[in-house]
Amino acid sequence: MIRTHNAGSLRAADAGSTVTLAGWVARRRDHGGVIFVDLRDGSGVVQVVFREEDAHALRNEFCLKVTGEVTRRPAGNENPDLPTGEVEVTASALEVLSEAAPLPLPVDDQIEAGDDIRLKYRYLDLRRSGPAKAIRLRSRANQLARAVLNERDFLEIETPTLTRSTPEGARDFLVPVRLQPGSWYALPQSPQLFKQLLMVGGMERYYQIARCYRDEDFRADRQPEFTQLDIEMSFVTEDDVIELGEAIVSALWSDLAGYQIPRPIPRITWHDAMSRYGSDKPDLRYGVELTELTDYLRGTEFRVFAGAIDAGGYVGAVVMPGGAAQSRKELDGWQDWAKARGAKGLAYVVLDAETGEARGPVAKNLSEGHLAGLADAVGAKPGDAIFFAASTNTREAQELLGAARIEIAKRANLIDESAWAFCWVVDAPMFEKTDEGGWTAVHHPFTSPNADWVDRFEEAPDRALAYAYDIVCNGNEIGGGSIRIHRGDVQQRVFDLLGITPEEAQDKFGFLLEAFKYGPPPHGGIAFGWDRICMLLAGADSIREVIAFPKTRGGFDPLTGAPTPITAQQRAEAGVDAKPKAPTGPHAGTAGPVAPVADPT
Amino acid sequence: MIRTHNAGSLRAADAGSTVTLAGWVARRRDHGGVIFVDLRDGSGVVQVVFREEDAHALRNEFCLKVTGEVTRRPAGNENPDLPTGEVEVTASALEVLSEAAPLPLPVDDQIEAGDDIRLKYRYLDLRRSGPAKAIRLRSRANQLARAVLNERDFLEIETPTLTRSTPEGARDFLVPVRLQPGSWYALPQSPQLFKQLLMVGGMERYYQIARCYRDEDFRADRQPEFTQLDIEMSFVTEDDVIELGEAIVSALWSDLAGYQIPRPIPRITWHDAMSRYGSDKPDLRYGVELTELTDYLRGTEFRVFAGAIDAGGYVGAVVMPGGAAQSRKELDGWQDWAKARGAKGLAYVVLDAETGEARGPVAKNLSEGHLAGLADAVGAKPGDAIFFAASTNTREAQELLGAARIEIAKRANLIDESAWAFCWVVDAPMFEKTDEGGWTAVHHPFTSPNADWVDRFEEAPDRALAYAYDIVCNGNEIGGGSIRIHRGDVQQRVFDLLGITPEEAQDKFGFLLEAFKYGPPPHGGIAFGWDRICMLLAGADSIREVIAFPKTRGGFDPLTGAPTPITAQQRAEAGVDAKPKAPTGPHAGTAGPVAPVADPT
Repeated sequence: MIRTHNAGSLRAADAGSTVTLAGWVARRRDHGGVIFVDLRDGSGVVQVVFREEDAHALRNEFCLKVTGEVTRRPAGNENPDLPTGEVEVTASALEVLSEAAPLPLPVDDQIEAGDDIRLKYRYLDLRRSGPAKAIRLRSRANQLARAVLNERDFLEIETPTLTRSTPEGARDFLVPVRLQPGSWYALPQSPQLFKQLLMVGGMERYYQIARCYRDEDFRADRQPEFTQLDIEMSFVTEDDVIELGEAIVSALWSDLAGYQIPRPIPRITWHDAMSRYGSDKPDLRYGVELTELTDYLRGTEFRVFAGAIDAGGYVGAVVMPGGAAQSRKELDGWQDWAKARGAKGLAYVVLDAETGEARGPVAKNLSEGHLAGLADAVGAKPGDAIFFAASTNTREAQELLGAARIEIAKRANLIDESAWAFCWVVDAPMFEKTDEGGWTAVHHPFTSPNADWVDRFEEAPDRALAYAYDIVCNGNEIGGGSIRIHRGDVQQRVFDLLGITPEEAQDKFGFLLEAFKYGPPPHGGIAFGWDRICMLLAGADSIREVIAFPKTRGGFDPLTGAPTPITAQQRAEAGVDAKPKAPTGPHAGTAGPVAPVADPT
Repeated sequence: MIRTHNAGSLRAADAGSTVTLAGWVARRRDHGGVIFVDLRDGSGVVQVVFREEDAHALRNEFCLKVTGEVTRRPAGNENPDLPTGEVEVTASALEVLSEAAPLPLPVDDQIEAGDDIRLKYRYLDLRRSGPAKAIRLRSRANQLARAVLNERDFLEIETPTLTRSTPEGARDFLVPVRLQPGSWYALPQSPQLFKQLLMVGGMERYYQIARCYRDEDFRADRQPEFTQLDIEMSFVTEDDVIELGEAIVSALWSDLAGYQIPRPIPRITWHDAMSRYGSDKPDLRYGVELTELTDYLRGTEFRVFAGAIDAGGYVGAVVMPGGAAQSRKELDGWQDWAKARGAKGLAYVVLDAETGEARGPVAKNLSEGHLAGLADAVGAKPGDAIFFAASTNTREAQELLGAARIEIAKRANLIDESAWAFCWVVDAPMFEKTDEGGWTAVHHPFTSPNADWVDRFEEAPDRALAYAYDIVCNGNEIGGGSIRIHRGDVQQRVFDLLGITPEEAQDKFGFLLEAFKYGPPPHGGIAFGWDRICMLLAGADSIREVIAFPKTRGGFDPLTGAPTPITAQQRAEAGVDAKPKAPTGPHAGTAGPVAPVADPT
């Protein structure tokens, strides 16, 4: 090592020793004949004192090797905010390892910079303590999760990333195959099929911190490549997977957030989550639950509500504590908010802070009887506002109220930003209606119906429940999984309901169905959104903060300039424009030579 | 868990307890009224005894749940070869979790099967103990390496796999970008540039078990995607990286091969390796060193040798102990062997086992004086054979002798297959001549010349040495790395020598050169070929044995049938045929919105 000590490790006890340090000029202060330099390395910062003539050329972010004696700082000059604040290093030798040009992005924690400049000069950004800390935290998170899994005899197994396109879910990224012109690999959206094959292969306990790829339109905080902690287990029930998941998140939050998650983490059914919070990933840091008013308001003459009720739909409400104090403009703002979400508006009444009298556009339309009991029905007090949603589509109305609930919490300052609230959302529905009137799988077509429904999900597909579970933290889905179908007859019935023909099933995942002919074990698993988990632990606002080299919207990398056009030669060589030789399907003739079975003993 | 115990864990001490097991029927034996089933799970095998009427339907690889009492086997029926051999489980309840169709690949360690069938039914192959063991070993190898690295404060950092095409080295796999039609990502051949950027970013110690991609013609044992343990460190010298490398391989071999590697691992210079072993990855499990005869044979009239010597080339020899006993046919076989390698042939003499007299085609052409001292010059004894190579190109001749050396060791049975021999090959050359008469980098253009050459490599590029090192095990290169150039002026001189124009350099890795303007630290690293290391540790013949789902030649996956043609819709959506909008280069306008800098405290 070029250095003998880490800059951030020096303490009063080191006074008198000669050290060699290596790091960067974080700050330089001239002081009549002497120059003070804050020297920064991965461990922290220490003050180095140079004679002016030795150090006049030094500029911020020069990379230095410095030899000198550790001395106690003169009394009164200590810096109690700095772990090394009791000492300084009096330089006797200096070597400039490399110089720095004027910085396009100051290496300064106080300066806010735009994402474009931060990502273009990510290597300077990462020298700042905040970004560096986020990357370090992520490394530690990997270590903590692996410790839990290793302890429980999980095998870390890599699955292929050049694989077969499965036109399911999002779009695949595609890769032309030069050696089989006209044929393409796909980058996997997840290791789902491979991890199930590993279970068929008797591996029993698998995990992988796996890179996944989804060619989605770039909304908000998406990356074309992302990472999940991917887990699959054989011979387990839902409870086993949930217990493991809790062990992992507990280890993470305990170590990285100093928070002991109370266990067991509460479970809430998907239907309860929707009806109480209007969300399948409820933020439980605050209350503000929804109230269903379908029965209460039955018989109302208010057309908006009556229409929904008569059509077998839903009317519900959510209360904004103190919401009656909002100005007319603020209340109008809610209409804009609702419209931006695609709703027609957001009906409301406010309760007079003194009298409790209901006012506002909806109040006029409700009968005296309905108005009289309203506050009690929804649990509102004088001074509150009550927002309503009504729809023939229950879920749509609940989701609008659920979004209003989150907005209420923000506007009314109900969120304890230092709090952590976890829950499992269980008993998710198996199927949902497609626009065409058929059924689609809410999770994926390999998710198992639960014991209640496995023999009769066809009777009421809209009510059939799955062994599917999501773990939610502060309103973020941080992981999800399911028990899979391992019985061929059940899988066939699910395909039948989904309208997947045997030919389609064969074409899409014939190899998995084939595997399931040979004694597949009962199995299930979970995948954690690793970027999101690290983001939450880092207290960051974007997953970009916990990715070393993230992309911006549109999948552009400001640092390397990727993606780029390719040359005509690359295009020709890659076989992009070749016609495929044969239709899809395994051609065993291309298999390699026979190799002996290894048995390393 | 469906089971209460692991099948392989049951012992005599468990006798009397009731257990529930879950696993597969490995073998079934009918025995008049009772059926014995070897039940296999991830932990091993135990014998289960059923009444005939309960188990008559069971076939191999049915997946079962069995409850029963553990009993000691009747005296004389114990199986000392089986850890569970003292007990059996008397079944009281049986549930068939799933059935198995007739097996296309028997789950039997004794049966040899072709790669095509093994990989098509990999999930059955993995139920066999050999293949399962190899996958388990690899998981453990990851764990061991990470323990060494975590202990030393390395950060595990993921680098992008959708990145910029760098037309360097092998061909890139390319990925069309739907959101920027006409632009493409490349899959990385290694994280090289990103790990160097992390060093510029002050991360100091990085590692990653990284997936890499090379679109190469499929030779022997290549996979289009492969894995390396990738490491980079700042403020280090070659010795530091080598010490770390030794710590990692020592941990691996100690735990997984039961072998304590003597340390320090011997270092041999690249030039010594070539002249003594004719290889830059010498197998040191046996001797059989090369002898240079250029000076000894100077003045010979044998035209083949004289031509090489007069042109400033090389003549050398390697001895095959006992090689004189080979038949004429065997000796002719060496000519075919040499021709298959692209050589004209392999000159040889044999020394009579009794008299030591030199015979054979070359003997006739050598003078009496040269013949008389030959055995001494090459260290041969009566009964040996001496093979010669001569060329104006020293390296070519040495490599032919090096290959002959390996072949000699095989044919003469000189290899101790249970031995492990490690070495570092250091002081590799910086440059080699291109066919066009220019220079190319032996490693990559960021490799640093060593201290002797850094200021004058232009004087004799063919002799200039690099801080580059490879680690070799039993003749396999299992890792390699270098100290990188961190000084802009040195990098520029290397580019100049390589004939890389500033425009080309800017286009290919402008972002790295830009980063190097801002105080880059001295740094270096290493990458271990993870597939190959696991293969060696598993005692396997092919890296396919340590990959869960490997591909065959041509990049074909017999299991999923990948790659496949894509649909016209996929092709249109992916923007494969779009014309790129603008030439290469960052377009900052696509960057996302400003996000605050996270500082999680």
